[in-house]
Amino acid sequence: MKKNAKEAIVKAAITLFNSNGYSGTSIREIAHAANVNTATIAYHFNNKTGLLEYCFMHFFEQYTRKMEAAYASIDRGAKECLKRVVSDLLHYQCENYQLASFIYREMSMDSQVVREIMSTYSLKEKYYFQKIFERGFEWHEFRPHSIPYLIIQLKGLIMMPFMNSNYMREVLYVFPNEPFFEQKYLKDLHLWIDKTLCSDIPIKKGAVLK
Amino acid sequence: MKKNAKEAIVKAAITLFNSNGYSGTSIREIAHAANVNTATIAYHFNNKTGLLEYCFMHFFEQYTRKMEAAYASIDRGAKECLKRVVSDLLHYQCENYQLASFIYREMSMDSQVVREIMSTYSLKEKYYFQKIFERGFEWHEFRPHSIPYLIIQLKGLIMMPFMNSNYMREVLYVFPNEPFFEQKYLKDLHLWIDKTLCSDIPIKKGAVLK
Repeated sequence: MKKNAKEAIVKAAITLFNSNGYSGTSIREIAHAANVNTATIAYHFNNKTGLLEYCFMHFFEQYTRKMEAAYASIDRGAKECLKRVVSDLLHYQCENYQLASFIYREMSMDSQVVREIMSTYSLKEKYYFQKIFERGFEWHEFRPHSIPYLIIQLKGLIMMPFMNSNYMREVLYVFPNEPFFEQKYLKDLHLWIDKTLCSDIPIKKGAVLK
Repeated sequence: MKKNAKEAIVKAAITLFNSNGYSGTSIREIAHAANVNTATIAYHFNNKTGLLEYCFMHFFEQYTRKMEAAYASIDRGAKECLKRVVSDLLHYQCENYQLASFIYREMSMDSQVVREIMSTYSLKEKYYFQKIFERGFEWHEFRPHSIPYLIIQLKGLIMMPFMNSNYMREVLYVFPNEPFFEQKYLKDLHLWIDKTLCSDIPIKKGAVLK
């Protein structure tokens, strides 16, 4: 029973935070939507900040684990590895699109929680991206380029559909929670890797042209 | 004097909305930061929603005008035109990076103001992008592709640095308000157009190969 209450609270919080914003949502509204009383929320999460922290940790723990697992395939080549990272992260966001959408919006705020998340999870993510890009340059798979600028582009492409879910739905009629979207958009992300990252690679000195 | 007060209010509101969020900011705080009393804010903007609407209109009126002006160069070619659109929108955002950052976050919320903005400005923006892409396909400048999926990618690339300004600064050490950023990132956006949009174009039937 207790576990169900906790899950119901998290689910209600994600939905409400996503549509009304974190500051625009009260503990009372979450309690009402989860069908529990406010004392139950206090028991599990202390207060609204505790609930927010739980959502962040929940999202980024899994996110980082996906990234680590995909990075393990680096020896098959940087391009293959990056394609797997992109595919796994896209899938994870599609599966959790409400949570992703709310977390990304909240990450744009300048708060204590956000600073803590950035100094752990975002730095870890950067570390893995950096490793993959460095390997790609070293093995002449990727065109040499500034790593931060590559991360901006790749993260922009990966996050866009979830940072703007209303726009996607109401203006473009594209639905990021449908399997069709994931398949189609993954091709675009892979195309960016093939065309923007892997084309025009300078010829290695001393290499034998085939 | 009155005009100065109005400007000071808008400036203070943008800064506070950007760092603490719209819901996390009170009229009292804005009045304090702008060095006016709350009655002056009420006189100019009615209430906090009025101030929010003013910021939205202010941002999107200019944004749309930039897009229209750049679109006027369509007869020089779709690729040239798209490069100009991208360059002008990037420049506009860099010049107004705090406003852009706050507006993009707020756009992810599901509110009355956001719905009104989307049904006017976002649809106009989509219209121009669509026109440019259609011309590009027709004139065999762009590889044929789903227009909504191209818009997702292009907008993701254009908006990313402003939707995540803390991340840019704290994790990547990239500063979107500096001229160096604009120059460097514009090259990346143009590269996306050259490599992802303009490569592998199917040969026109009946065309004479040179």
